[in-house]
Amino acid sequence: MDLKQKIREIKDFPKEGVSFKDITTLMQDGEAFKYAIDEFIKNLKDKNIDIVVGPEARGFLTGTPVAYGMGVGFVPVRKPGKLPYETESYQYGLEYGSDTLQIHKDAIKPGQRVAIVDDLLATGGTMEAAAALIEKLGGEVVSMQFLIELESLNGREKLSKYDVNSLIKY
Amino acid sequence: MDLKQKIREIKDFPKEGVSFKDITTLMQDGEAFKYAIDEFIKNLKDKNIDIVVGPEARGFLTGTPVAYGMGVGFVPVRKPGKLPYETESYQYGLEYGSDTLQIHKDAIKPGQRVAIVDDLLATGGTMEAAAALIEKLGGEVVSMQFLIELESLNGREKLSKYDVNSLIKY
Repeated sequence: MDLKQKIREIKDFPKEGVSFKDITTLMQDGEAFKYAIDEFIKNLKDKNIDIVVGPEARGFLTGTPVAYGMGVGFVPVRKPGKLPYETESYQYGLEYGSDTLQIHKDAIKPGQRVAIVDDLLATGGTMEAAAALIEKLGGEVVSMQFLIELESLNGREKLSKYDVNSLIKY
Repeated sequence: MDLKQKIREIKDFPKEGVSFKDITTLMQDGEAFKYAIDEFIKNLKDKNIDIVVGPEARGFLTGTPVAYGMGVGFVPVRKPGKLPYETESYQYGLEYGSDTLQIHKDAIKPGQRVAIVDDLLATGGTMEAAAALIEKLGGEVVSMQFLIELESLNGREKLSKYDVNSLIKY
C-alpha cells in the first residue's frame, strides 16, 4: 500500500511556508491505519521489545496500537505538569528557547528493551529527549519508528547512534 | 483480571482534595493493557462500528488500539488550533468558564456508526461535546466506552441517551 497517498498536505500550517503533513486522513482509513501499524510491528518483531514509548500527543496515536498489537506495555512521555506521579525531566533546545519532556520515574525498569514510536521525525529534538529520559531510567533504546520522516531536516543524523526507521519519506 | 488493581491513585493531583486515577500503571503492564483493550473490542464487536473517535490526549491512548484491533479508522477530537484542516467546533461549559473541542469537517461521513472511547467518564462534558461534533457531521454515536467511570459525578445521567459502558468504576 502506498501510505504517502493517504497523507494530506496542508499549505501554510501551522505557519506560512510550512507544508504540514496531516496524518488524520490516513488514520480515519481503517485499512491504511491497520497496514501502517502492522508495518511497525513487522519492523519490531525480532527485537525483543518490552515497552513502547510515545511522546505526547500524536505519538500516542501510533505508539499505543503498536504496543497493543505486540502485547507489550506503553509508556507516555509528556509535557511538564501532565504526569501525576514522580517524574524525570529533560530539557532540550529548540530554534527559539527550549522545551521540557517528562517520564514517570518508575515507567521503565533497568534493562528493559524499548521502542519509541512517533508520527514524525523532523529535526530529531523530541526523540533525543525521549531517548535520554529512557536511558536515565536504565532502559535500552532498541529502535525508533516513525510514520513520516522529513529527510531535509536531517533528524536521522542527530539520532545516528540509534536504529531509525520511517514508513513515509518526504 | 481486576483492572482496578492496576490503577494508581494519587492524592491531591492536580489539586488538593482530588484523588487522581493514574492509568499509566495499567498501560505499562502489557498484559493488563491488552486485556483492557480486548474488553472494549468485545463490547463493540456486534455494533457494526465504522469509526472510533477519541478526545485529546488521553482518549488517544485508549481509542487508537481499539480502532486498530477492530480494523476501523480512528478520528481525533482536539482542542482549538491543533487540527490542520477545516473544522467544526463545539463550545461547552465547565465549572468555571468554557472549553471548545474541534473535529475535522470531513472526518466522518453521514450515516457512519461511531464509537467514542476515552480513559475517563467524569461529569460527561467532554463526551457531550464529542458526541455533538459527530452528530453535526451526520455520524451516529452508537456507543461510549470508558476505562474508568467516577460514578459520583453522574456523567452517565448527562449521557442518558447514549449506550455508556465503563471497565472500572469508582
